[in-house]
Amino acid sequence: MRLLSIPLLGLGVGLLIPLSLLAAEPITPIAAPTDIDSNKAEIGKQLFFDPRLSKSGFLSCNSCHNLSMGGADNLTSSVGHGWHQGPINSPTVLNSAYNLAQFWDGRAADLKEQAAGPIANPGEMAQPHSVALEVIASIPGYVESFVTAYGDEAITLDRVTDVIAEFERTLVTPNSRFDQWLQGDATALSSQELEGYQLFKSSGCVGCHNGPAAGAAMFQKVGLIKPYTTDNPALGRFAVTGKESDRMVFKVPTLRNIELTYPYFHDGSVDTLEEAVNIMGEIQTGRTFSDLETGKIVAFLKTLTGEQPNFPLPQLPPSTPATPQPEPYGP
Amino acid sequence: MRLLSIPLLGLGVGLLIPLSLLAAEPITPIAAPTDIDSNKAEIGKQLFFDPRLSKSGFLSCNSCHNLSMGGADNLTSSVGHGWHQGPINSPTVLNSAYNLAQFWDGRAADLKEQAAGPIANPGEMAQPHSVALEVIASIPGYVESFVTAYGDEAITLDRVTDVIAEFERTLVTPNSRFDQWLQGDATALSSQELEGYQLFKSSGCVGCHNGPAAGAAMFQKVGLIKPYTTDNPALGRFAVTGKESDRMVFKVPTLRNIELTYPYFHDGSVDTLEEAVNIMGEIQTGRTFSDLETGKIVAFLKTLTGEQPNFPLPQLPPSTPATPQPEPYGP
Repeated sequence: MRLLSIPLLGLGVGLLIPLSLLAAEPITPIAAPTDIDSNKAEIGKQLFFDPRLSKSGFLSCNSCHNLSMGGADNLTSSVGHGWHQGPINSPTVLNSAYNLAQFWDGRAADLKEQAAGPIANPGEMAQPHSVALEVIASIPGYVESFVTAYGDEAITLDRVTDVIAEFERTLVTPNSRFDQWLQGDATALSSQELEGYQLFKSSGCVGCHNGPAAGAAMFQKVGLIKPYTTDNPALGRFAVTGKESDRMVFKVPTLRNIELTYPYFHDGSVDTLEEAVNIMGEIQTGRTFSDLETGKIVAFLKTLTGEQPNFPLPQLPPSTPATPQPEPYGP
Repeated sequence: MRLLSIPLLGLGVGLLIPLSLLAAEPITPIAAPTDIDSNKAEIGKQLFFDPRLSKSGFLSCNSCHNLSMGGADNLTSSVGHGWHQGPINSPTVLNSAYNLAQFWDGRAADLKEQAAGPIANPGEMAQPHSVALEVIASIPGYVESFVTAYGDEAITLDRVTDVIAEFERTLVTPNSRFDQWLQGDATALSSQELEGYQLFKSSGCVGCHNGPAAGAAMFQKVGLIKPYTTDNPALGRFAVTGKESDRMVFKVPTLRNIELTYPYFHDGSVDTLEEAVNIMGEIQTGRTFSDLETGKIVAFLKTLTGEQPNFPLPQLPPSTPATPQPEPYGP
């Protein structure tokens, strides 16, 4: 904790006040939740890694939200069933519990609603929910775990998405160098990084990228000052609300772990943080950063990389003769 | 340790002798190696999970040798670049250091030689070795690790396959219930499982499935007594040696963790252990097992499931602007 000593006149002593109370920062520390149901989260972790949720038996949630790589796939757009090219860049699952809504266009209210989408999407995991549930219910290792978590053997979409969401709630990345600085360790950031943060604030970036996730808390038009040019046909919130004012309005992505979640933007068109910062400066704030300024902001952004998921590689319970067979090559 | 008391005549005392010395079993305990270079194995672990070794940036060694699922993909044949259907069932990487040679047809002498194959195979990871090396050399986190392991920055195919092989050497699954029994715990197996093991021995299965890996130590013709019928065009060792006597001769697969590594045989055509046991009985030993006998042998086989890999999910060092871009959808 950074403390400020305020001298009390005539007494010869000082009053120590946490600096964070004096200068509230627009980005705030991020912390893992303390109310996790570990039984549910453990099942969710297994299911997150289980390719049997897909029609092919080859794709899992972790295929595109790879927890070894910042919770994303580091591709312009994701690979789905039959090598289908996805329409949009895969957002990181890290800290996704902080998203005001899920998907780039916010079409799912929460993690639980989101989890159902890719399983059944023909261009993603392509597995009808009924078959996915049949698969899980055929595996005694899963059934036993659901009994432990819920008290009975029912395997429903509600429960399956509930446990996946509970696992995803654990995927918070605390203790980045920036958080250490926020929490009082003045040595955690270099002067370049601090200058980058000041510039990030003074340039207006914090208007959208604020709060514990440094983003994820609002929708915003991409191309606020100048139009965003892209070949990607996605229309953002417009596709959800049909409102003209929502055209090209997307969820502001979190900047947590942004060093790891390249390429950038909803179309995954930008490979480097430098280019991303420059484009954002131009089209969202109307500012042209010098190379020096860009370098400082990028240096700051890299301090937002937190502790990555740290758990043993999950082991999945084996299938049985009753388990529906994967169909990687079928029609 | 099981001990046998042999009375010494006239002395009124007994001589305690480890039973394993008296009745050597054809299957022997399996144990992890003690001479692992942990620096190399750690890099190898990261590379094993790193999809940037593939042209698409989407497929890693772990995609088809999934360490959450018995070191295999549980598919009839594997999915490769562009959703290419692989020609043969993906063998488990678990205990693969015990293989007398690698691949079903033994065309690679050892793990190091094997590791180079799938990276560059156009139907698997499809990445020219030169690009894979360029990718690794562009990532500072890897370069530093290679310096630690080898003393300098050179990233060569020799070193890359060396570290992957070193990691794979660690993938041994000790302490199965069968090993516990072998090492003297008479309570580790049920009577059904023990009867299954006796039947496994008396039926001749141990002729091929012996040693620490319960297989993997010899080549054998599939269809020794009766022909093996399959649509799969693989010809086994014949493709390597060109000898007529090697037609349909394959490496005998390990039975370690066989419960986890379905579907079975080089063509992945059989989904259940029961069917696999029955077919092997018919075509390799000329024996038709009753349902009761099959059940016993399957019960025994399930005691060969050992301790699965247990390490934290690897975290991969991020790419840089110098890193060659993945090309999932290119020609």
